[in-house]
Amino acid sequence: MSVAAALEALDAFLGERFTRSKSELEQHGRSESYFPLTPPDGVAYPETAEEVQRIVQICAEHACPVIGWGAGSSLEGHGQAVNGGVTVDFTRMNKVLEIRPADMDVTIQPGVTREALNEELRATGLFFPVDPGANATLGGMAMTRASGTTTVRYGSMRDNVLGLKAVLADGRTIETGTRARKSAAGYDLTALFVGSEGTLGLVTELTLRLHGIPEAVSAGICAFPDMGSAVTAVMETIQMGIPMARIEFVDAATARAFSAYSGMAMADSPHLLVEFNGSPESVTQDAERFAEIVADNGGSPFEWSTREEERRALWALRHNGYYAILASRKGARAVVTDICVPISRLAEAVEETQADIAASGIPGPILGHVGDGNFHAILLLDPDKPEDLVEAKRLSHRMAERALRMGGTCTGEHGVGHGKLAYMEEEHGMGWQVMGEIKRALDPQNIMNPGKLVPQG
Amino acid sequence: MSVAAALEALDAFLGERFTRSKSELEQHGRSESYFPLTPPDGVAYPETAEEVQRIVQICAEHACPVIGWGAGSSLEGHGQAVNGGVTVDFTRMNKVLEIRPADMDVTIQPGVTREALNEELRATGLFFPVDPGANATLGGMAMTRASGTTTVRYGSMRDNVLGLKAVLADGRTIETGTRARKSAAGYDLTALFVGSEGTLGLVTELTLRLHGIPEAVSAGICAFPDMGSAVTAVMETIQMGIPMARIEFVDAATARAFSAYSGMAMADSPHLLVEFNGSPESVTQDAERFAEIVADNGGSPFEWSTREEERRALWALRHNGYYAILASRKGARAVVTDICVPISRLAEAVEETQADIAASGIPGPILGHVGDGNFHAILLLDPDKPEDLVEAKRLSHRMAERALRMGGTCTGEHGVGHGKLAYMEEEHGMGWQVMGEIKRALDPQNIMNPGKLVPQG
Repeated sequence: MSVAAALEALDAFLGERFTRSKSELEQHGRSESYFPLTPPDGVAYPETAEEVQRIVQICAEHACPVIGWGAGSSLEGHGQAVNGGVTVDFTRMNKVLEIRPADMDVTIQPGVTREALNEELRATGLFFPVDPGANATLGGMAMTRASGTTTVRYGSMRDNVLGLKAVLADGRTIETGTRARKSAAGYDLTALFVGSEGTLGLVTELTLRLHGIPEAVSAGICAFPDMGSAVTAVMETIQMGIPMARIEFVDAATARAFSAYSGMAMADSPHLLVEFNGSPESVTQDAERFAEIVADNGGSPFEWSTREEERRALWALRHNGYYAILASRKGARAVVTDICVPISRLAEAVEETQADIAASGIPGPILGHVGDGNFHAILLLDPDKPEDLVEAKRLSHRMAERALRMGGTCTGEHGVGHGKLAYMEEEHGMGWQVMGEIKRALDPQNIMNPGKLVPQG
Repeated sequence: MSVAAALEALDAFLGERFTRSKSELEQHGRSESYFPLTPPDGVAYPETAEEVQRIVQICAEHACPVIGWGAGSSLEGHGQAVNGGVTVDFTRMNKVLEIRPADMDVTIQPGVTREALNEELRATGLFFPVDPGANATLGGMAMTRASGTTTVRYGSMRDNVLGLKAVLADGRTIETGTRARKSAAGYDLTALFVGSEGTLGLVTELTLRLHGIPEAVSAGICAFPDMGSAVTAVMETIQMGIPMARIEFVDAATARAFSAYSGMAMADSPHLLVEFNGSPESVTQDAERFAEIVADNGGSPFEWSTREEERRALWALRHNGYYAILASRKGARAVVTDICVPISRLAEAVEETQADIAASGIPGPILGHVGDGNFHAILLLDPDKPEDLVEAKRLSHRMAERALRMGGTCTGEHGVGHGKLAYMEEEHGMGWQVMGEIKRALDPQNIMNPGKLVPQG
């Protein structure tokens, strides 16, 4: 391995668009989590798929690690250069290449962010629904198989990437999927790449499925006496086939943080925030039927509206949730956990987690995408107390173990990176070895985002 | 390779549940298409996952090909023993292992058929929606990534397999997926296996997503002056977000065949058959809104009903479509084609295909899952005229080429088998080589369903 030779060749190839400045290296070595700084040796800013291909070819020639970088918003250290090497920053590959309203799809470069895409789509009456909270790049979202508040209705990146172009570890380019809505032609390489976290190749183009902006939207909020009755209401709603566009759970601690942050007076108990999309008649009917289910389960009256300003205020609560929770402990840093369990185990999983957090020294409000069985505890650490981080790691570890024990997954939407590597064997057993075999078949030099996702060493 | 030694060991292991009788071998060497008989050397009937594992281990030891077999209803020769070897018939692995109504999922053995599963589910208020027409096994449906009339609403096997257990070529067993609704934990091995046609391993267990039986259903039919106006109506319906559960297209030739077969008088023009699922109010509203779109596009009045006997009569038409078309040419055999294109190209693709068929010597009514852009021509051959088969193959070839030219796929739902191998390079380019590399990594001896899907030789 001769990283130095790769750096020299990349410098000659990209000129000013290749940098080794300390500040740029450090910026690309950080993470949104508690992981220590692990900067790369250089950062490349390609503008075309052909440049990405050449960059990978140069790195392959010198066995130099290659790490993709989008908005840097991933949570498990996906973009960290744990073995050094070259980070490929997709910031300049941020073009929407073609919108096809008749087929309700769009082809983009991977550096386009979620919000920028929806801005460009506005005039078409279409939108891209996957919303992980952060204004991540769509390349990053594809690579981590992101999902979010709307997944219960519109699916995750797994369901909304129709195809992609990628540069493999040996510099070959492949194009997966077609523009047809479905296909039975061979291995689903699109699905293999979505969620592969840059360990199989770098994505240079994505074709995404779009959805019609709903004619009407209703949204509302209600409180429940306890977690179990909230989850029962969700299960009954799903079983009755009432199509929820979002259904978000917040626990009592989160409700307190929301109240303090927004000035809105929320009851000190678990809440559901719910949205329906459809025609004016259907969203009214859906809200009314949901209100009945809530009442049957002992919830407070479901207060809902179709008016945009009221809906916006409601979702602003949720979107600012992270900051509201962060503000609830002065000067705190947050560790964000992420597990997903079968819905039948959700109440139990949340209650066990709450008890565990209560017994620890640190606060940890819980919220989640309850329709998917996915929830997060936002563990609040005092940065001056090293024992808080130890405690947060212990709580996070026990959450992952709890999810696996209940037939769930150690990560519902954040991905593996290096932060969740320790749970992969337990979650997948021999399947994890098979992931390693696929990785080795396509990247025998282990240059594509080494140290992540697959078995190491 | 010593098939003989494998046969001997399997005979000792399985006794009466291993057979070499000529009739059984021939039964497992046929296909539903025009491919010549290619029988295996033996047929095994395992009853447990452990037996499947042992069978594969024995075959691996002797480098003997292993071919999975479900209902034998696949259309591209998937189950044919083109290199000889042992066919593993899953008929006896037909148990529903666990239904979990609260999680709306079910775990089954792969030999359970679609109809048997829905029969077992009846009391739960849940159903499994993927319906390819034939009463295929769910193992076979998973392996070919089957879809069908309800895919526009409920998705294909890609969307409805939550996880699976499989025996790999070296006899290891893996378990993919979890019981959580989503996961970001590593490569999506479930998606890699769904559609892999038995070339990566044999599936011994499936966990499937279930859906609530809709409270109310409306369904109806309408005629259009031409294909273009029918497709425009479909596109507008999708864009308005009216949730169709089925939307099936039949061309004028199919309408004539349906009329003759059923006695129902249909106009001699293209038709759409449409279904909506939901609440009594929503299915009425959906049907009324769809009727307006139909009228705006020059269609005949949309005749619809929520009454079960009328809906049943309508879908009996569609379900008997193959037989109605077959009956329209006395003594004919059928070659069924299967392409899928972007919806914006669908009218053009159907019209070009119709013109091509009209110029040929043989009839070929067209029907399809128009919401997905997927359609079939049922080419009717006189079995006594070899030139008819030549012509049918030419038409089928030109359909595949047309789909690829329009950005679509050579197979929307039937799969590759050996019948569509010739189009894989054109459809996937370098991606097809990558499929071969994954295959070789997991099955270096090439014993799992050789001769199918991946590059050969």
